[in-house]
Amino acid sequence: MSEKKTVVIDLKFARREVDEALSNAFAGRTVLRAADAAADLSDARYAVIWKPDPTLFERAPKLEVLFSGGAGVDYILAMPNLPDIPIVRFVDESLTTRMSEWVVLQALSHLRQVPAYAKQQRERVWRELTQPEAKDLTVGVMGLGVLGQDSVAKLKIMGFNVIGWSRSKKVIGGVETFDESGLDEFLAKTDILVGLLPLTPQTRGIFNADLIGKLRQGGALGEPVFINAGRGGSQVEVDVIAALKNGVLGGASLDVFEQEPLAETSPLWSMENVIITPHAASASDVRALFRNAEAQMNDYEAGQPLRHVVDRTTGY
Amino acid sequence: MSEKKTVVIDLKFARREVDEALSNAFAGRTVLRAADAAADLSDARYAVIWKPDPTLFERAPKLEVLFSGGAGVDYILAMPNLPDIPIVRFVDESLTTRMSEWVVLQALSHLRQVPAYAKQQRERVWRELTQPEAKDLTVGVMGLGVLGQDSVAKLKIMGFNVIGWSRSKKVIGGVETFDESGLDEFLAKTDILVGLLPLTPQTRGIFNADLIGKLRQGGALGEPVFINAGRGGSQVEVDVIAALKNGVLGGASLDVFEQEPLAETSPLWSMENVIITPHAASASDVRALFRNAEAQMNDYEAGQPLRHVVDRTTGY
Ligand SMILES: NC(=O)c1ccc[n+]([C@@H]2O[C@H](COP(=O)([O-])OP(=O)(O)OC[C@H]3O[C@@H](n4cnc5c(N)ncnc54)[C@H](OP(=O)(O)O)[C@@H]3O)[C@@H](O)[C@H]2O)c1
Ligand SMILES: NC(=O)c1ccc[n+]([C@@H]2O[C@H](COP(=O)([O-])OP(=O)(O)OC[C@H]3O[C@@H](n4cnc5c(N)ncnc54)[C@H](OP(=O)(O)O)[C@@H]3O)[C@@H](O)[C@H]2O)c1
Repeated sequence: MSEKKTVVIDLKFARREVDEALSNAFAGRTVLRAADAAADLSDARYAVIWKPDPTLFERAPKLEVLFSGGAGVDYILAMPNLPDIPIVRFVDESLTTRMSEWVVLQALSHLRQVPAYAKQQRERVWRELTQPEAKDLTVGVMGLGVLGQDSVAKLKIMGFNVIGWSRSKKVIGGVETFDESGLDEFLAKTDILVGLLPLTPQTRGIFNADLIGKLRQGGALGEPVFINAGRGGSQVEVDVIAALKNGVLGGASLDVFEQEPLAETSPLWSMENVIITPHAASASDVRALFRNAEAQMNDYEAGQPLRHVVDRTTGY
Repeated sequence: MSEKKTVVIDLKFARREVDEALSNAFAGRTVLRAADAAADLSDARYAVIWKPDPTLFERAPKLEVLFSGGAGVDYILAMPNLPDIPIVRFVDESLTTRMSEWVVLQALSHLRQVPAYAKQQRERVWRELTQPEAKDLTVGVMGLGVLGQDSVAKLKIMGFNVIGWSRSKKVIGGVETFDESGLDEFLAKTDILVGLLPLTPQTRGIFNADLIGKLRQGGALGEPVFINAGRGGSQVEVDVIAALKNGVLGGASLDVFEQEPLAETSPLWSMENVIITPHAASASDVRALFRNAEAQMNDYEAGQPLRHVVDRTTGY
């Protein structure tokens, strides 16, 4: 068995959690920290990264594989001095499960008129509102990857009518699906739009006034609702805000933003029927990240292919 | 075929919805309205009721079957001059589905710290909170009837660990269940308690300080959460309020109250981590009610047994 290769960690996560998780990870390997400016990274072969320092690739010229600390890799592909080596993205059951918790919570919150009932509660008003049920609404999910497909299954079990859209057409039992060319038809049927897309040149700014204007009007909730937990770069926030103001959109749940943290001056914070969370829909569990990365390193050294490798031509 | 028997309607629902639904219901039957003081009800054989006038039973002495407009029948059994005839309670897929929407919404809202994030949103604060996932929490459902069992299945699919309690022991795949004698053991494992019990002499005031004090402390959310959509008479509100104040409970979602509407002076309206809805978890759809009642009337006249008949000894 060949010697186990060296790992460098450059994760802009909470320091304490990284330290704790590291104490139980990467048995038999030398583990270096990029944050340690004196560390000699010249022999590191793997990097586990989230928003790494641009100097990393100069300090570690022998890297063979990059492991992303998140499901999205747009921040890596945007780095100018990125070496031409495989990038493995983070896929994990708990990441998926927690995203579906958030998506189902947001869809149910709009269905069950949570903002309106919360306002009534603040005003101590007891008044029942007219209530459509889940099957009266169609949730359209854009992005049918690992996260999108789990959300689709759970939204369906909660009773929603669910349809989906992805680059290549998917076959999912009980769910009408559309490929790139079917976007307008998909939007015209959608009452609640859920964005679970990666950020790529093709998806940048995709949620703009034109797209929002094609969502179904006059469904069981009156106006359509926009939910996004993919990437903020996919939404044109001025368009989302305008659509909320002029009644083209009836509500929104946003976990991601063009600029994060969301500026204190953004009108989104205080808009009616808008629910804001601070990019917290599904945070990476660093223990699971290390478990996944370690297993792949061991398999790779045993001659197995890497899994969940990013395709640089499509950007995800 | 014998002639179709006469129906009297006494539903304290929105008048317009009842009128609309009646226009398509009870084909071939004489339908009378109790609200019409001049109507002669002496030959009515069925009554479809929700909070009926006490005079109904004097005006309609030949009633053979009562159809309840809601799943709960405590308000009927409390009537002093109730005739000794079968009471059919309302069981309907859409009633069940909508209750599960509400229960899953509330469980996810506490899991995902919705009140805390809503407060941060009002203050324009961007801060990620430590986030347990569904499988770190045990939801204990009290009442495993039509509603309880559907909620159990959907909570489980969302990832929660789920346990259940009912009068007689139930067998449900993947769910630990307890009967009456196992209450303390059930409570000691429960982080989120969901009440879906009917109101009976045995369940009146069951959610009191003693029971709340037996819920698990120190689970993944810190303190336990109380969710109730059964009947308000099952909860001792002063005890719930005290437990919320002194930190024995970390939060609550209440759809039902000892007195409805909830008094404007109740401290519950403005307590942190308390979500109030106005007995709206699952309103009866009057069209479905008439559909169900009409089908049972036809079957009954064809010699079939009635379904969902209330057991007066247990009170549900
Ligand atoms: N907010 C958070 O906390 C959080 C947490 C984790 C992840 N995320 C975001 O969620 C994204 C999705 O994650 P995932 O694991 O589900 O990714 P994934 O498995 O790679 O799936 C991506 C999906 O998007 C589709 N897609 C990509 N580009 C498209 C295009 N131009 N047109 C139409 N469809 C396109 C893909 O289509 P094909 O099926 O045809 O390839 C695929 O269905 C991540 O990239 C990340 O940005 C956010
Ligand atoms: N908030 C709303 O909008 C709304 C809407 C609809 C209904 N509800 C309420 O929800 C209640 C439940 O409805 P459902 O259709 O599920 O009723 P159900 O089918 O009759 O089930 C009742 C469940 O409670 C259990 N139970 C009753 N008495 C008990 C006791 N003393 N100790 C332990 N368990 C006991 C029963 O045990 P066994 O299985 O052993 O019989 C059964 O599992 C209704 O009675 C109504 O009050 C509220």
